Amino acid sequence: MSHIAYVNGRYVPQQNAQVHIEDRGYQFADGIYEVIFLWNGCPVDYAAHLQRLSRSLNELEIPAPMSWAALTVVIKEVLRRNRLTTGIVYIQINRGVAPRNHAFSRALRPSVVVTVKHGAGPSEAVANKGVKVVSAPDIRWARRDVKSVALLPNILAKQVAAEAKAFEAILYTPTGIVTEASASNVWIVGKDKTLVTHPATEDILGGITRATIIKLARASGYKVTERPFTVKEMRAAKEVFLTGTTTFVMPVIQIDQHTVANGASGEFALDLRQRYTDYMNNSNPKTAWNV
Amino acid sequence: MSHIAYVNGRYVPQQNAQVHIEDRGYQFADGIYEVIFLWNGCPVDYAAHLQRLSRSLNELEIPAPMSWAALTVVIKEVLRRNRLTTGIVYIQINRGVAPRNHAFSRALRPSVVVTVKHGAGPSEAVANKGVKVVSAPDIRWARRDVKSVALLPNILAKQVAAEAKAFEAILYTPTGIVTEASASNVWIVGKDKTLVTHPATEDILGGITRATIIKLARASGYKVTERPFTVKEMRAAKEVFLTGTTTFVMPVIQIDQHTVANGASGEFALDLRQRYTDYMNNSNPKTAWNV
Repeated sequence: MSHIAYVNGRYVPQQNAQVHIEDRGYQFADGIYEVIFLWNGCPVDYAAHLQRLSRSLNELEIPAPMSWAALTVVIKEVLRRNRLTTGIVYIQINRGVAPRNHAFSRALRPSVVVTVKHGAGPSEAVANKGVKVVSAPDIRWARRDVKSVALLPNILAKQVAAEAKAFEAILYTPTGIVTEASASNVWIVGKDKTLVTHPATEDILGGITRATIIKLARASGYKVTERPFTVKEMRAAKEVFLTGTTTFVMPVIQIDQHTVANGASGEFALDLRQRYTDYMNNSNPKTAWNV
Repeated sequence: MSHIAYVNGRYVPQQNAQVHIEDRGYQFADGIYEVIFLWNGCPVDYAAHLQRLSRSLNELEIPAPMSWAALTVVIKEVLRRNRLTTGIVYIQINRGVAPRNHAFSRALRPSVVVTVKHGAGPSEAVANKGVKVVSAPDIRWARRDVKSVALLPNILAKQVAAEAKAFEAILYTPTGIVTEASASNVWIVGKDKTLVTHPATEDILGGITRATIIKLARASGYKVTERPFTVKEMRAAKEVFLTGTTTFVMPVIQIDQHTVANGASGEFALDLRQRYTDYMNNSNPKTAWNV
């Protein structure tokens, strides 16, 4: 079955899905995106993803291209045409098409692309074993809280990970603070069993899964602290794990040449992963699309 | 006359010039570009622009899509089809098209777009009067020496300038160092008549015009120092000016609410602008395309 993409008002075979060379997303990375996980026909944390999409647009002063109700209709139609029930929905909104010029007109009509990809995310077997990661300097811009398509530093870091056959690249600042990974948030478990993750400042992208895990963890009696931590502290942690829309909760067992704790997937991480899976399974198909 | 663009091997009417939605330039800002000024049929500093293009590709490990001889043939053909003799040549090279995934295959074929725009750059009248600029925090990533299309921070800064009816936005670091402007390099003239500009480190894009002006200035007896300077030092300077491919040399007479020196275009800047114009006029059509 050929994939169908939504591009600026039309549903087109993905292989022919095109945009203009003067789309500002192409020439200036002047756009934002969201990735939403669909699980058995239910979008996970749909309202939160659309809130973040809205916030990213606001921060860049890109007008909303349509109402969220209309966007929801588009997404559902792309899902229907691709018969997708479990996989990824990708939404990209750019400022629009205009003759190349750094400054922009506020009258541009934003470009909208929606695509989907089948797939169930990392398997339980991978999570049970845990993953290896690398560490890399965080060389990104100062507004990492905006989910923009200016992802060049992220993809370069992820490539370092991929070539080391590692799952992710954990990023650290010049002063040794762990911000996040190239496409997921980083957590540690300290000696006092507290879960620690970087606060959702301008230094990181505030993950939707991160926020959900904070809620689920607290509701389950875990202590959670949002504060910066160092590479040194991470290396000494009892557990290290990642969270993300397509990562769910992923235990880290090795960072570069350093083995985390005893080298096995952490107990807290696996418990939280199970709680997150339960959370997804308990989604209500009738209310999951509410925004 | 409809503009003609070169897109991945074909010459197409620019209004229909399209690229795939999964071009990594569109989804990840995974690409680089150059802007070359064409003056009376001669490209200005063509070899230097192609060297920088080559360096940008190397830094991102994007393979060259074709030989520079072949690219020159393409550029000349786009110029011919658009009957362009004075204006801008825009070259964008992205890593290629692939299903969305942060990490990349090294087997991708890079995407190539070449477009042109008619126009003679800022007039002598504008330069003689001088321009107003604003200052803004430099929030870009740590590899500003790579001429990537991840230009989101640049366009946001330029927009601040445009909305203040200013010519440019001069960027400064958290410690008050002037790096460059959103799309040009910044120079000051100190009390000892030395020309000062930020060194070509990873903190700035090393301008081709900047390098040419350094050579022309030194050959004309000016003292030139490449060192960082502060906003405070810039405000106290005898002259402030910008250099760039489409800016040439542009005197700055006002920075935010601060008037530079006596508020008139600086003598050194106007002299260097004349020398740069002479340099362009003396280009040899037979050798200008040599790389």
